[in-house]
Amino acid sequence: MAGYRVAVVGATGAVGQTVLRVLEERAFPVASLRVTATARSAGRTVAFRGQPHTIAETTLEALRGVQIAFFGGGDGASERFGRAAAASGTVVIDKSSTFRMEPDVPLVIPEINRRALRGHRGIIANPNCSTITILMALAPLHAVVPIRRAVVCTYQSVSGAGRDQMEALLDQSRRLLERPDLLRDRPTPEDVERVTGTPQPIAFNLLPQWKWLPGGVTEEEDKIIHETGKIMEADIPISVTTVRVPVLIGHLMALHVEFARPFPVERARAALAAAPGVEVADDPERGVYPTPLYATGRDACVVGRIRPDPTVSGGLCLLAATDNLRKGAALNAVQIAEALVEERLLAGARL
Amino acid sequence: MAGYRVAVVGATGAVGQTVLRVLEERAFPVASLRVTATARSAGRTVAFRGQPHTIAETTLEALRGVQIAFFGGGDGASERFGRAAAASGTVVIDKSSTFRMEPDVPLVIPEINRRALRGHRGIIANPNCSTITILMALAPLHAVVPIRRAVVCTYQSVSGAGRDQMEALLDQSRRLLERPDLLRDRPTPEDVERVTGTPQPIAFNLLPQWKWLPGGVTEEEDKIIHETGKIMEADIPISVTTVRVPVLIGHLMALHVEFARPFPVERARAALAAAPGVEVADDPERGVYPTPLYATGRDACVVGRIRPDPTVSGGLCLLAATDNLRKGAALNAVQIAEALVEERLLAGARL
Repeated sequence: MAGYRVAVVGATGAVGQTVLRVLEERAFPVASLRVTATARSAGRTVAFRGQPHTIAETTLEALRGVQIAFFGGGDGASERFGRAAAASGTVVIDKSSTFRMEPDVPLVIPEINRRALRGHRGIIANPNCSTITILMALAPLHAVVPIRRAVVCTYQSVSGAGRDQMEALLDQSRRLLERPDLLRDRPTPEDVERVTGTPQPIAFNLLPQWKWLPGGVTEEEDKIIHETGKIMEADIPISVTTVRVPVLIGHLMALHVEFARPFPVERARAALAAAPGVEVADDPERGVYPTPLYATGRDACVVGRIRPDPTVSGGLCLLAATDNLRKGAALNAVQIAEALVEERLLAGARL
Repeated sequence: MAGYRVAVVGATGAVGQTVLRVLEERAFPVASLRVTATARSAGRTVAFRGQPHTIAETTLEALRGVQIAFFGGGDGASERFGRAAAASGTVVIDKSSTFRMEPDVPLVIPEINRRALRGHRGIIANPNCSTITILMALAPLHAVVPIRRAVVCTYQSVSGAGRDQMEALLDQSRRLLERPDLLRDRPTPEDVERVTGTPQPIAFNLLPQWKWLPGGVTEEEDKIIHETGKIMEADIPISVTTVRVPVLIGHLMALHVEFARPFPVERARAALAAAPGVEVADDPERGVYPTPLYATGRDACVVGRIRPDPTVSGGLCLLAATDNLRKGAALNAVQIAEALVEERLLAGARL
């Protein structure tokens, strides 16, 4: 079959698995596929187009001759092999945060800043899954009326933290359902840890993100703020609180946005309805609004509850949800590959 | 025993049960106790101070001679019997939203506006559980530097919607744990309904509040906005998004606040630490921050992640969490009763 020599690095992870599904669904021209992961997973098989593929350990050698490598992120492979693979001629489409803010690395949401792909030097970064959700909703509005400031609160599912956290949510949920007294009676951290394995479970609970930067900001908040500036090529002040919620898949964002001029709700809704990759779901009285469960398995960023904010001039509020494994990760990565193909930005010949 | 003739209306509900526990814990002077509920629960017993008490159906007759009646809200009893009970000489401390915005009904958080109890006419309303959480954190700050505007996103547990919703979360969670495919593979609403009983479960999902007002605002958002004005006796513009999360007990609020003047974080933290009913839990690098599980069973409003908001002049961000059944409901109601006793605002003689 004509196509490209493709690798999926981290193929057993939540993102890697979704990359394989999205490549199938979109019939991306894959001539040959290599699947790699950490040594722990080497030898296992994953399915692609009905065929089993054996996982190799991720090494530079395993990526030799590959034209497009999707790095799933989360296992350190990007730091270890990303630059070297790019130097060997592979175009690396990376989900990790390793390269996002590097000046020579485009940070791309294809619907928003596809043009940033031109002049890439072998590595293209995917934004953080919350950043993607936020900007898929905000960029089409900013194009009509500039944004002065946005307050964002995130409701992020555990799959954003990878496959292990997904298992942890399900496992903790099972254990706490057998001990619901721990959810009612002022449980001690010790009792909770004895039952769930951690004093701070995510099941039936909420957690601020857990990597902290000086000043009490989470790494997640910092990413959203800085990635927004790079992608939008504009200084859009974002005030953000990130919270992890006990949801398996699907990130929800509550957006309270201040525009430079009044922005009637109907104009905003029309701008979002016309935006590629956006689905407007906004009939709350009939139960139509963005939820993570509704977004799960969908490609679009789902927006709704678009309403005026009477507390500020030019204010609008809305909700936005994506499947964080798809548009927040794997789909965005495959869309980048498609754009590279269309714009003839892949080095090396097509087979 | 010397004390008051007390009734708990809705004694089988989530709030009523917690009122009984809080009355015990705080050794409120209860001379006699009547417990009532809908006809469906009549004849069942509930425990108070180690003794079983038989539930009577809530009627005006059942409340005759009662000096203080705690109405749990949620079963229509407030609308049916609240005014009549007050007219008969019972002081009604009501959790429902029925009377909150009535001009002759004080809406009270004792730590904040206890003086509003003076001149009550037999009914005192408890605020919405989100309003209480928000204002326990904001009022001590507003007393130091006036608030110009606040953006609030809520993360509300299901117990705020009553006992049935608590059972629903646990039941839906059990069912979905046996069908985790429904959380991954773009489930149809029909499949989800077949397994959970509803096309829009709250388990492993997030739901905007479900009562809608014109303009696309939820009833919950409307309550927060208007109750804040009444309690604070000030026009504090609040921009709010309410979201129900799959947590059993404990409401978390993300607050992005604009003050009239710059407000250093250390001064804000000191003001909160000195505020009655507030616990500062703010050492995130050591895992100390407000979560619903931490707040569960505690009396205080737990605040943390107090940090500057560099996107606006005089900006601060923080998180606040309460046990919505305690400070958000039952504890606040019992504190109102205690204040009435202390200020000699109960009609009729103490036995």
